[in-house]
Amino acid sequence: MKAIIQRVTTASVSVGEVPISSIGRGLCVLLGISMEDTQKDVDYMVRKILNLRLFDDENGRAWSKSVMDKEYEVLCVSQFTLQCILKGNKPDFHAAMPAELSQPFYNNILEHLRSTYKPEMIKDGQFGAYMQVHIQNDGPVTIELVSPSAPMDPKQLAKQEKQQQRKEKQRSKGPSESGRERAAPRPRAQDPNASSGADGDVSSERET
Amino acid sequence: MKAIIQRVTTASVSVGEVPISSIGRGLCVLLGISMEDTQKDVDYMVRKILNLRLFDDENGRAWSKSVMDKEYEVLCVSQFTLQCILKGNKPDFHAAMPAELSQPFYNNILEHLRSTYKPEMIKDGQFGAYMQVHIQNDGPVTIELVSPSAPMDPKQLAKQEKQQQRKEKQRSKGPSESGRERAAPRPRAQDPNASSGADGDVSSERET
Repeated sequence: MKAIIQRVTTASVSVGEVPISSIGRGLCVLLGISMEDTQKDVDYMVRKILNLRLFDDENGRAWSKSVMDKEYEVLCVSQFTLQCILKGNKPDFHAAMPAELSQPFYNNILEHLRSTYKPEMIKDGQFGAYMQVHIQNDGPVTIELVSPSAPMDPKQLAKQEKQQQRKEKQRSKGPSESGRERAAPRPRAQDPNASSGADGDVSSERET
Repeated sequence: MKAIIQRVTTASVSVGEVPISSIGRGLCVLLGISMEDTQKDVDYMVRKILNLRLFDDENGRAWSKSVMDKEYEVLCVSQFTLQCILKGNKPDFHAAMPAELSQPFYNNILEHLRSTYKPEMIKDGQFGAYMQVHIQNDGPVTIELVSPSAPMDPKQLAKQEKQQQRKEKQRSKGPSESGRERAAPRPRAQDPNASSGADGDVSSERET
């Protein structure tokens, strides 16, 4: 999961001129959920969003207080485009969790934010709608968060994939190999970090 | 270099209630320059910002047209906080290029954007000032760009660092080794991608 966190003076969401929600001082969080995300990523993100020290303390000391310390608000908006893989200059979003899965997943994140902080301090957009998100970025201060089990660097993925293939080859030569295993159409790495690499496209992320 | 690119309906910058600049439809680009960045990163970023297909074509087909195709504007704002390394919940910005170096570097990026597109279509904030950046994110559509020579995944950096150390060890056993080389206080990897890992802090990025 990726999150772009902007420290804001105000932020709001509207859908076709209709205001949906707004906050005063706090954080606007754009949240990109990937195919690989699990509850572990949710726990990490919720903890980081609420505890990151992005605000001054009462003496003006920077990077001292969290959104909870300051009793500020959070506006959270789902943003699948953060799971973008570039194919040349065209964005590809196959790494994003599909909407039918990501909507309950996203609602779970909101619930978790609300129960960890205070329900009334967590605002939301309108999932899947075409929105205008008004952000008054204060500073500006923008932080990118990546949860620990997010897909890794493409080069590393390619390397892991090769290692996996080598292992598969060695196993297929070994004595314990069964014919059924060998016939498997497409071996997938067991490591959750490696699995997205098996599907190929990620390696084009840093293409020029 | 990292860039957070938001597709906008409008965007503007003000410093202490004074408007500095504004654009209509286009892209708001928050740009985080790292210690490692070179002209290669500038070339990559400028090319991607101007050519990324984030807009619809005349038939409403999504992800078809670039900001240049549409003759839209770009508001570019320097954002060192994107080069954040988390130490627990506290952001650390030692990976960011220091202001005295990053200001000419950033101006070079603006120049490059202006000469590649049209000077009047590229707007700017006020480098180093405390700004309010008003962003009307349209969609929302937010893309993170990382230039190819940006620091890699911490795990990979640690791995490369170990490989480098192993190489140094082997070299120190070899016949062509000179005493001076062996006495070097801190071997640094030659690969520009690996060098930031040698300085340690990056490995805490994914700390929980």
